[in-house]
Amino acid sequence: MPNKLGILAGSGPLPARIIETCLASGREVFVIAFENETDPKICENIPHLWVPLGKVGTTISRLKLEGCRDVVLAGPVRRPSFSKLRPDMRAIKLLGKIREAAGQGDDAILSILVGELESENFHVVGADVLLNDVVAPEGELTFHTPDKRDEQDIELGVRVARALGTLDVGQAVVVQHGVVLGVEAIEGTDALLKRCAETRREEQGGVLVKLKKPQQERRADLPTIGADTVRRASEVGLNGIVIEEGQSLILDRGEVVAEANRLGLFVIGIKA
Amino acid sequence: MPNKLGILAGSGPLPARIIETCLASGREVFVIAFENETDPKICENIPHLWVPLGKVGTTISRLKLEGCRDVVLAGPVRRPSFSKLRPDMRAIKLLGKIREAAGQGDDAILSILVGELESENFHVVGADVLLNDVVAPEGELTFHTPDKRDEQDIELGVRVARALGTLDVGQAVVVQHGVVLGVEAIEGTDALLKRCAETRREEQGGVLVKLKKPQQERRADLPTIGADTVRRASEVGLNGIVIEEGQSLILDRGEVVAEANRLGLFVIGIKA
Repeated sequence: MPNKLGILAGSGPLPARIIETCLASGREVFVIAFENETDPKICENIPHLWVPLGKVGTTISRLKLEGCRDVVLAGPVRRPSFSKLRPDMRAIKLLGKIREAAGQGDDAILSILVGELESENFHVVGADVLLNDVVAPEGELTFHTPDKRDEQDIELGVRVARALGTLDVGQAVVVQHGVVLGVEAIEGTDALLKRCAETRREEQGGVLVKLKKPQQERRADLPTIGADTVRRASEVGLNGIVIEEGQSLILDRGEVVAEANRLGLFVIGIKA
Repeated sequence: MPNKLGILAGSGPLPARIIETCLASGREVFVIAFENETDPKICENIPHLWVPLGKVGTTISRLKLEGCRDVVLAGPVRRPSFSKLRPDMRAIKLLGKIREAAGQGDDAILSILVGELESENFHVVGADVLLNDVVAPEGELTFHTPDKRDEQDIELGVRVARALGTLDVGQAVVVQHGVVLGVEAIEGTDALLKRCAETRREEQGGVLVKLKKPQQERRADLPTIGADTVRRASEVGLNGIVIEEGQSLILDRGEVVAEANRLGLFVIGIKA
């Protein structure tokens, strides 16, 4: 039996999914819930501790006390303002390291966080290792497939997403008939798609491309899509969604595929 | 006395400013007003023709009939859906050229348009040639100047804006304390700033960087700021605005500088 899993729970559906899977297999978990980030419902009846994001010392000592050796960073966390962060000594030290780092994008910060946990002898595991059947496969998952125009949109979307990812700006891009409708920064993919529903063309068409940042720490914040992503993409009039084989997560693949088939979208995993 | 000026009038304040300046100097103008784009107020009492964007043949023959040799493309134009474009034969030919072009971003299309007008012996002039005192100078225009943290944000903003511009995605980026808050695609700078007012940090700080796309046709859609841009930037809590010396337009510089000084923002023109 693997040791107790420490879950640093960000927002979105990922933490709940990890908790379910662990409990189903009989593995114990301990949840670090972040104020204003973690969905309170997920830790009902589950051993947990609520902390402000800046209480790094408290987090580490509690995970040790609970006997967690494996730790997972699950779900995105919005970076709070300094005044809301309420950093302890340990967090202040980390902030110093972050300030010294070349970039201050999400990926740079997550890498520093992972390094800090490892220096305390935690074993940081990726969400994809804990969940079954969550990593995107290669090829078409749906009945629908890209047509020639979609393929051009995909090509442009991949180029833009790579450039943005390299600069640690964001993971997602929406392209419709050769036009970049929108580009994701910190607002997230949901907000991007909502906005594109307003700037969209009248005709059906276009794609959402969501890729891992090239240099991204693989164990934190892998590009993720779910059934909601499919529904929002459909509201923009898009023909499909492109993710990267082996480098992105599909939550509830059955539901994602069913929803995409129902709405007439393709979902494909491309090779990096 | 220069010949009659043909004004292809997009949205925003630029066309009105060009009309005013010409009339003040006694130069005749003829305005091509695009349905759903041009502000109807600007052509009151001015010789003009309303056309759908797709009536390229009509536009060219009317400009010839009016005896316009100089033509200016003033103000941004949203690309309509094909069904709203109502293209004539000439427009269909142009759309073919656009489809063959490497990219289909705004810059690619504007370059093809400029080429088409030149093939008809029009002389396409930039808005900056027609307006006095509109081209951004180098250096600080305001009392306020960037501090060390702003300089880091500027550096990151310039890198991201260049990458986006190279891909013909957009001109503007908002960076706050090392975090890219938002990136402009087709929604425009106003919409970008509105959105960033929601995702902003609580503390004051950050910059709007707006640069010409590196390969951009200089005679169309140069990056433009006005007093509204300053007010919106202030609502995001930004410390200032960065544009490019010689490559961007400041409308009503006096008002822009006064408003920036009043709100505590810097406006600087950097060297490319």
